[in-house]
Amino acid sequence: MPTEVSDKPISRIAVIGVGQVGGAVAYALTLGSVAREILLVDVDIRGRDGQVRDLSDAAYSSKRNTRVREATYQEASQCDIVVITAGSKFPLGETSMQHLYHNIAVVRNVLEAMKPFRSDTILLLVSNPVDVVTSLARELSGLPSSQVLGSGTFLDSVRLRGLLADKIGVAGPSIDVYVLGVHGDNQVVGWSLATIGGVPIHTSLPRSAIDRAELEKECKQRSQDIIEAKGTMPFGIGSAVSSICASILFDKRNVRAVSHYQPDYGCCLSMPVILGRKGIVGTIKMPLSSGEETAIADSANTLRATISRIRESTG
Amino acid sequence: MPTEVSDKPISRIAVIGVGQVGGAVAYALTLGSVAREILLVDVDIRGRDGQVRDLSDAAYSSKRNTRVREATYQEASQCDIVVITAGSKFPLGETSMQHLYHNIAVVRNVLEAMKPFRSDTILLLVSNPVDVVTSLARELSGLPSSQVLGSGTFLDSVRLRGLLADKIGVAGPSIDVYVLGVHGDNQVVGWSLATIGGVPIHTSLPRSAIDRAELEKECKQRSQDIIEAKGTMPFGIGSAVSSICASILFDKRNVRAVSHYQPDYGCCLSMPVILGRKGIVGTIKMPLSSGEETAIADSANTLRATISRIRESTG
Amino acid sequence: MPTEVSDKPISRIAVIGVGQVGGAVAYALTLGSVAREILLVDVDIRGRDGQVRDLSDAAYSSKRNTRVREATYQEASQCDIVVITAGSKFPLGETSMQHLYHNIAVVRNVLEAMKPFRSDTILLLVSNPVDVVTSLARELSGLPSSQVLGSGTFLDSVRLRGLLADKIGVAGPSIDVYVLGVHGDNQVVGWSLATIGGVPIHTSLPRSAIDRAELEKECKQRSQDIIEAKGTMPFGIGSAVSSICASILFDKRNVRAVSHYQPDYGCCLSMPVILGRKGIVGTIKMPLSSGEETAIADSANTLRATISRIRESTG
Amino acid sequence: MPTEVSDKPISRIAVIGVGQVGGAVAYALTLGSVAREILLVDVDIRGRDGQVRDLSDAAYSSKRNTRVREATYQEASQCDIVVITAGSKFPLGETSMQHLYHNIAVVRNVLEAMKPFRSDTILLLVSNPVDVVTSLARELSGLPSSQVLGSGTFLDSVRLRGLLADKIGVAGPSIDVYVLGVHGDNQVVGWSLATIGGVPIHTSLPRSAIDRAELEKECKQRSQDIIEAKGTMPFGIGSAVSSICASILFDKRNVRAVSHYQPDYGCCLSMPVILGRKGIVGTIKMPLSSGEETAIADSANTLRATISRIRESTG
Repeated sequence: MPTEVSDKPISRIAVIGVGQVGGAVAYALTLGSVAREILLVDVDIRGRDGQVRDLSDAAYSSKRNTRVREATYQEASQCDIVVITAGSKFPLGETSMQHLYHNIAVVRNVLEAMKPFRSDTILLLVSNPVDVVTSLARELSGLPSSQVLGSGTFLDSVRLRGLLADKIGVAGPSIDVYVLGVHGDNQVVGWSLATIGGVPIHTSLPRSAIDRAELEKECKQRSQDIIEAKGTMPFGIGSAVSSICASILFDKRNVRAVSHYQPDYGCCLSMPVILGRKGIVGTIKMPLSSGEETAIADSANTLRATISRIRESTG
Repeated sequence: MPTEVSDKPISRIAVIGVGQVGGAVAYALTLGSVAREILLVDVDIRGRDGQVRDLSDAAYSSKRNTRVREATYQEASQCDIVVITAGSKFPLGETSMQHLYHNIAVVRNVLEAMKPFRSDTILLLVSNPVDVVTSLARELSGLPSSQVLGSGTFLDSVRLRGLLADKIGVAGPSIDVYVLGVHGDNQVVGWSLATIGGVPIHTSLPRSAIDRAELEKECKQRSQDIIEAKGTMPFGIGSAVSSICASILFDKRNVRAVSHYQPDYGCCLSMPVILGRKGIVGTIKMPLSSGEETAIADSANTLRATISRIRESTG
Repeated sequence: MPTEVSDKPISRIAVIGVGQVGGAVAYALTLGSVAREILLVDVDIRGRDGQVRDLSDAAYSSKRNTRVREATYQEASQCDIVVITAGSKFPLGETSMQHLYHNIAVVRNVLEAMKPFRSDTILLLVSNPVDVVTSLARELSGLPSSQVLGSGTFLDSVRLRGLLADKIGVAGPSIDVYVLGVHGDNQVVGWSLATIGGVPIHTSLPRSAIDRAELEKECKQRSQDIIEAKGTMPFGIGSAVSSICASILFDKRNVRAVSHYQPDYGCCLSMPVILGRKGIVGTIKMPLSSGEETAIADSANTLRATISRIRESTG
Repeated sequence: MPTEVSDKPISRIAVIGVGQVGGAVAYALTLGSVAREILLVDVDIRGRDGQVRDLSDAAYSSKRNTRVREATYQEASQCDIVVITAGSKFPLGETSMQHLYHNIAVVRNVLEAMKPFRSDTILLLVSNPVDVVTSLARELSGLPSSQVLGSGTFLDSVRLRGLLADKIGVAGPSIDVYVLGVHGDNQVVGWSLATIGGVPIHTSLPRSAIDRAELEKECKQRSQDIIEAKGTMPFGIGSAVSSICASILFDKRNVRAVSHYQPDYGCCLSMPVILGRKGIVGTIKMPLSSGEETAIADSANTLRATISRIRESTG
């Protein structure tokens, strides 16, 4: 029987907040064997322990020996990646504004409880409003901008490609089109740079083949539809977060649209980056149409104003 | 752009009942690309459509082009595998007996709505009490006994191996020990045949190394703990069902303990079988200790009595 | 113990010619569990049986129960995909022209021995000169043009992306650039449509960042270097063929450059197609630069002349 | 574009000797994304560079960003695992004894060139005669016994399970039976402890169902058949080595029969061990039959005599 336990560094991802969304994130990470250890943190100790037990049952059949366990905020801050999903549930009876302030307070507390972070930890924000939360986390965490990112419009981009793929019969991964800017009502589709198999969409696809406005609406509306139907939206975001974590831990260097700091706008919103072991290891300059540029700038201005208001009101 | 759609037979799994458990089953099937199509069926149309949308978001990034869609009972009954999770939620305020009758009624209705099944469909029951439900489904479905199985003690067996693995530092898949009989309070651990790396546990592991009673209790208690903490237990069972479906669809012929018809006892309970493309393609004769045999026979008798009572009271 | 064997249709790929290249193709298919059965065919019975045994050893640990066995030409022609690698070894002492005629004779014999094909079989040619061989196979096989393809410049495209990826630190799959036209000395890189993360390369990457001519040369030269060093080039092509087969069998609908029939040119060469269960399920119109167009047309003309000469001399 | 390169420790496997066997090992490691870097070492620089190029083509499409590159002996000795396949080719015209001395000289030189090893490197010997070579490598390397292992009868065990699986229709991984002792003519099958689905084979399978002697012979004969047919036996051993490396790097703790030091016998031969991040993290005591014990002791004595002779003659 074994006599020693390994003391080599192993890959670890912490998930902060393990309700429906955090649970699905941890489940996708476990089934995909993305890290060797998944650490769960939650103020609801009982719920957290339930998740540890349920996910451990799943981990027992993982391919590459993944382990799920509970952890403290201090342990979490020493992981390779820290995923923050806290506050992702929209409580009944709260206004949207109350929800925003509530989530910001939650994320602020979580960050304070974790500080100081390991100097090379990657912080991945999933809580909504994701661009506000990512912007604040960047300031509060003390980590370099390249190590603080938000899920942003990553899932919207995957979904738009998927919807388009279903319509035209081409694989999603062979379609390049990004949803950009501020995740939510003001997000912008970069149609001017859309390609199918690398070929500009305006050449490869007759304009009449798809209804762009319809697709954009379907993409935006779907989150709302899912939340109305189920009260939560765990599975899509679970896969999306797992995919981002895999890009980071395996230093894949895929190009993905995630929320990150934009020096030009002074806040975090989604533009394409190269994801690798150190987080954002590069950015891609997008020669968008002027209409798209303007729409993104407008959404950035609104976002910045919101962030200022929050800063003032929360000191 | 593509001009044709394939008309070749593709692999399909239907999930009946897509609440927390059914959702997690479909999520595990999607992330693992176990089948080409996952069909969701539920009486709650809105909830079902929410699941289809949320799972489709996840499917867009699956490796092998898996699709999730809603379906009717009739379509479901033509799939390669039909997983029934309906009634897996334990409603507050119901007694255990009410819950039993409720679930049986649900499963009965579901089976009636699906009949006739494709003649080679495999029916996989997950709803509790799983051995009662599997026994009745066998009678009602009109399918051969080899095509009707229940998740039974499969998850319990995975869990026991996992708990043991954690304690002694050996991989779960290198441990062979089964939880057998009637899933629940009366389930029986086949310690007399337990092996580690193929070597009988009484030789390979000092008796004092583990506390068998403690492990059994922890294994049995965990389901209760998870349900009390979360109200539901989706992840472990989701992985377990996905693993059973993979064994069937890929004709893997692994030996697994699942609930199936026992001619000696006249009802369904868990004993090891060989799982393949036609369902149960073989059984393994277990030379259990007489104590274990007796315990299983006792649990079988109780189960048969329960089934008789149900038959009488529900006509 | 099992009493029945499944009679359901299972996925099958035949590999014709199982020397170094065919062996590596079968190995990649086995390790990736791309099909349930891999059928090996070769005139060298002893070598074939050696491959069946060696690959079976590998198959015993495959994830999804893949089986390798020997087969006749008649069985091969009933598979979902038939991969022809026969004649891929370049015998010492042969001139290039002798080698061409030799390979064409081999492929012709192989096709005749397999006819008639199952009506929906996909024929994938790997033997060189691949565009000549694919063009002739299309005529001889009696299969629709959408079901006859050649590996063409698929590996060249993967390699060019990989070389570029290494240079600029972006994942290969996030780069879209095709090697097109006639595989070999006259192949053409479609730089005018190259994108990184969907963004045109001339915007996303400073022109000075890479030396295009150098990359093209390295890409073209590498095959020669490998063959000179090892006498054969099995691994890259093995993975490439496995990837094409996965796109087809799982109906992935990725866009890939493979050799296929060009009505405008009257012969087969590589342009991007959508690969799915029925083979080529769509094509992508490439708005190439006029220089690129001309280069492809020139290579097509040379190819067509070669094919005519072959037709005349071999009746 | 990226500005930084990761400096975090990444997993590395070195393959020493990259002919047919080493090449197949590296190919399996690449396709399975077992490590982030595969380092190739060979005295034949040209052949090595051919392998680096050919395998890099394959690596470009690996799932988890695996890189293949050439390396020096010094770099190799700092890897997580060092696989030695040098001398695995049996040169025509050599006697078996000459081949033995040749291989021992090769492995000795290779070890000297690599010393000193990183203190926690795992050394995996594949060169034949594997038990002699592993025994000598243990002495020469200066590494602890738990970090020096040989592929031994691992592949024989996989093969025997696979042959048995094919015969009785049960999955190989559900069968536990080991080929033990000294790899080759004197290897011993531990039939007395064989189980199917954890159930002793003498209960679960009628004695007449299989011909044990026939299976043993087929298992032993196959290596010979493959080498006679192909001159080399790369694929089975490639998968086997890749599987051992995965058990180590992912700390899987599977039970596997590999060659390792036996204090009772004073040499290395195959008995089951628990494989983890530190190499052999435990052993399993096998209560074999006295006939099996004796056969293993006999083979150990012969082996030890051979090793003594070699020590004397090579100083």
